[in-house]
Amino acid sequence: MRKVFLDVSISVDGFIAHADNDPGALHEWIFTVPGEGFSPRGVNKAVFDEFAARPGAIIVGRRTFDAGEEPWGPEPPFRCPVFVLTHRPRETVQFPNTSYTFVTDGLDAALSLAREAAGDRDIGLMGGSVARQCLAVGVLDEIELHVVPVIFGDGIPLFEAGSLGQVALERTRLVEGDGVTHLRFNVKH
Amino acid sequence: MRKVFLDVSISVDGFIAHADNDPGALHEWIFTVPGEGFSPRGVNKAVFDEFAARPGAIIVGRRTFDAGEEPWGPEPPFRCPVFVLTHRPRETVQFPNTSYTFVTDGLDAALSLAREAAGDRDIGLMGGSVARQCLAVGVLDEIELHVVPVIFGDGIPLFEAGSLGQVALERTRLVEGDGVTHLRFNVKH
Repeated sequence: MRKVFLDVSISVDGFIAHADNDPGALHEWIFTVPGEGFSPRGVNKAVFDEFAARPGAIIVGRRTFDAGEEPWGPEPPFRCPVFVLTHRPRETVQFPNTSYTFVTDGLDAALSLAREAAGDRDIGLMGGSVARQCLAVGVLDEIELHVVPVIFGDGIPLFEAGSLGQVALERTRLVEGDGVTHLRFNVKH
Repeated sequence: MRKVFLDVSISVDGFIAHADNDPGALHEWIFTVPGEGFSPRGVNKAVFDEFAARPGAIIVGRRTFDAGEEPWGPEPPFRCPVFVLTHRPRETVQFPNTSYTFVTDGLDAALSLAREAAGDRDIGLMGGSVARQCLAVGVLDEIELHVVPVIFGDGIPLFEAGSLGQVALERTRLVEGDGVTHLRFNVKH
């Protein structure tokens, strides 16, 4: 059955980026060689490649898109359409292996477009706001956290106190990466 | 070399208790049989027993003490003196295997008392405020998080945005418990 999953690197204190949107040390497990693009190694490469091959569509928040546009560019690790949830209209950007479609009429519209594009493949989420919105309405099925051994102290949180009620999870996978711990959870609906 | 360590159960979104101080599902891996007291099982029991045997002294915040006094009682899992960091003076409570001393003149005083009591054994910290204070002044050496698969949505956070600068950690142990993931980190001073 098609799943909606969140895949995100996170600090031990729950941040997905510094306050200026820079993910800093959180992406060092993906970019191990400066200037070489995606270059995870060993078990981290296996986890990353699996993530990249998985989605049939991606929904991303505008903030995360703005933070990630530069590294993704026309050759992102995934090869599927991306739907950017935003309030600012913009023309669709088409690349050979991906496209960026800007959705201004809310999460339901983005989910409909993503479901249509994904067929029976999974839908990936990127960004804290999109993830929280999907959790709140019960459409998020799986959370994969890449926990990086650093305390940020401040920044963009994945979860925001008071924005959600209690949600039970079930750990379904635990992978000990080099410099990062990969934790996968099912959301108990 | 003697270490100062934090040992705490935490939700996936970083809370160590609900807003009313109740740790809720976070302690279910320790209390598996209602009414039977400490009853962790299997690998969780090994992790818990190691924690209980480790400290030569414990420093705890008043909030955490108030939340934990009832389950600990005169027979806590650890057998060492406890120093309660508080603004409210109170007579020392002495039990056969532990004591609760209330320290009103700040963290340094509590650390001095704990070091004297612990000898060459480690000093355990309990509570978010005490942990953050020790991190801020560079005396926290190790963090053990028991990550429970639940999103609280709100409550008492371990870390508070803006209260700390960036702190580099190193994961030194990863244990897959039943219903909980045990993650140990060194603090890079």
